[in-house]
Amino acid sequence: MTRTVYLNGDYLPETEAKVSIFDRGFLMGDGVYEVTSVLDGKILEFAGHMARLTRSLAELGMGNPLSEEEWLEAHRQLVARNEVTEGMVYLQVTRGNPGDRDFAYPPEDTPQTVVMFTQSKPGLADNPQAKTGVRVISLPDLRWSRRDIKTVQLLYPSMAKMEAKAKGVDDAWLVEDGFVTEGTSNNTYIVKDGKIITRQLSTDILHGITRSSLLRYAAEAQMQIEERPFTIAEAQAADEAFFTSASAFVMPVVEVDGVTLGAGKPGPVATRLRELYLEESRKSAV
Amino acid sequence: MTRTVYLNGDYLPETEAKVSIFDRGFLMGDGVYEVTSVLDGKILEFAGHMARLTRSLAELGMGNPLSEEEWLEAHRQLVARNEVTEGMVYLQVTRGNPGDRDFAYPPEDTPQTVVMFTQSKPGLADNPQAKTGVRVISLPDLRWSRRDIKTVQLLYPSMAKMEAKAKGVDDAWLVEDGFVTEGTSNNTYIVKDGKIITRQLSTDILHGITRSSLLRYAAEAQMQIEERPFTIAEAQAADEAFFTSASAFVMPVVEVDGVTLGAGKPGPVATRLRELYLEESRKSAV
Repeated sequence: MTRTVYLNGDYLPETEAKVSIFDRGFLMGDGVYEVTSVLDGKILEFAGHMARLTRSLAELGMGNPLSEEEWLEAHRQLVARNEVTEGMVYLQVTRGNPGDRDFAYPPEDTPQTVVMFTQSKPGLADNPQAKTGVRVISLPDLRWSRRDIKTVQLLYPSMAKMEAKAKGVDDAWLVEDGFVTEGTSNNTYIVKDGKIITRQLSTDILHGITRSSLLRYAAEAQMQIEERPFTIAEAQAADEAFFTSASAFVMPVVEVDGVTLGAGKPGPVATRLRELYLEESRKSAV
Repeated sequence: MTRTVYLNGDYLPETEAKVSIFDRGFLMGDGVYEVTSVLDGKILEFAGHMARLTRSLAELGMGNPLSEEEWLEAHRQLVARNEVTEGMVYLQVTRGNPGDRDFAYPPEDTPQTVVMFTQSKPGLADNPQAKTGVRVISLPDLRWSRRDIKTVQLLYPSMAKMEAKAKGVDDAWLVEDGFVTEGTSNNTYIVKDGKIITRQLSTDILHGITRSSLLRYAAEAQMQIEERPFTIAEAQAADEAFFTSASAFVMPVVEVDGVTLGAGKPGPVATRLRELYLEESRKSAV
């Protein structure tokens, strides 16, 4: 089936959706994005992703080209037209096409570029990796310093994922000044003596929507949470580890740099948090 | 006049040159670029830019989609078709369009995207700013750590230029761990007691083609050169300062963070180097 995608107000066959070579997203990485998950044909965490999108745009001096109602309508149209039951909706906003290349921002009335598409992933919530857990290696965090802005400058995360694959593991945890910042496209956690430890928010990491909700659900369930940086050595000595992202939800990690954690399979805390997250986020899906 | 641009082997009107929304240059900043200057209708430093392009691509695990002869032919075609006497030729190569979004690289046989266009800038060599000098402020260097790879992840340089403009100056010098790395899109130099001081090559800075040639010409002219990092305070206490880039050639800097350098006008070393560079690079233009 040819996907229908969204481009600047139009619904088009995916092969016809093109942007100018002068688009600042293409020439300068001058754009931001969001990915929301779809379960049971409904959008998860919609309000959270909308709030972060507006924040990312504002940090770059851009407004939000659509209202929340328009965004929701476009999300629902794409999910319906592409018959997505489980999967993701991707959206990207760039500073648009000034008709030429210049480091200086174009005039403020330059129309932004808005792109959206779906990715159908049947079985997303039943990912078999969640039952076995994944293995990660550590790599230096070479990304730019404003990781709180969700820009399309994703080359290093892409390189790091390729390096992890080349080493025979699933993903990489990025390390800066001796501490884990986050994964290539996810927030990271360890569990020690029943306590959930995860890095506090700053410009050093993405302000994960899944992270935020999960910590709230965990707190409501009376679980202990400590927000602070941790090292790879601490992760290797932890009882459990896991990461969160919009499309992986809660994913157990069973090996860090070749060291097996605990029993080498998903632990009780990560397993319970995954169930809790899926249950709660389905409830608030729209 | 509508420009003719180059896209994947075709010469097209600029308004018709479009790439897929799934191009990795658009979704992930997964592309590299070069800018060469044109004087007297000829390409400057062609061999140097070609060598750096091949290196950038190789560092990202990509091959060079065109031979040096094909690149030269395309450069010359664009210069001729757009009647460029003075200006620039921009080229960009991305990892292409895999037809969907994934952090993992697409199969190696995925065709790369090749984009080229000209920017006509009559008077480029006679830029009046070279006679008055430019003013810069310092800003923290927030870019990713592989600045030796000339990627299209240019959002921070763009933001820094906008901040410099907002502060009423021309450009920004980026500072990391107390030392100047480089400008937003140029290599930086100070002159003290006749000695030219510029940061040594590493992954921290772009390996400027203009930088490399200029240092060779300066050495041939028996000028003293020291390659080491310098601070903003040192720059403010210097006799002269300047920057180099493919399109600015040698540009005198007369103010750093509000402090006027020397007599507040381009000094003799920068002025002589600019003349020397223009003379020599015209000689080797193709």
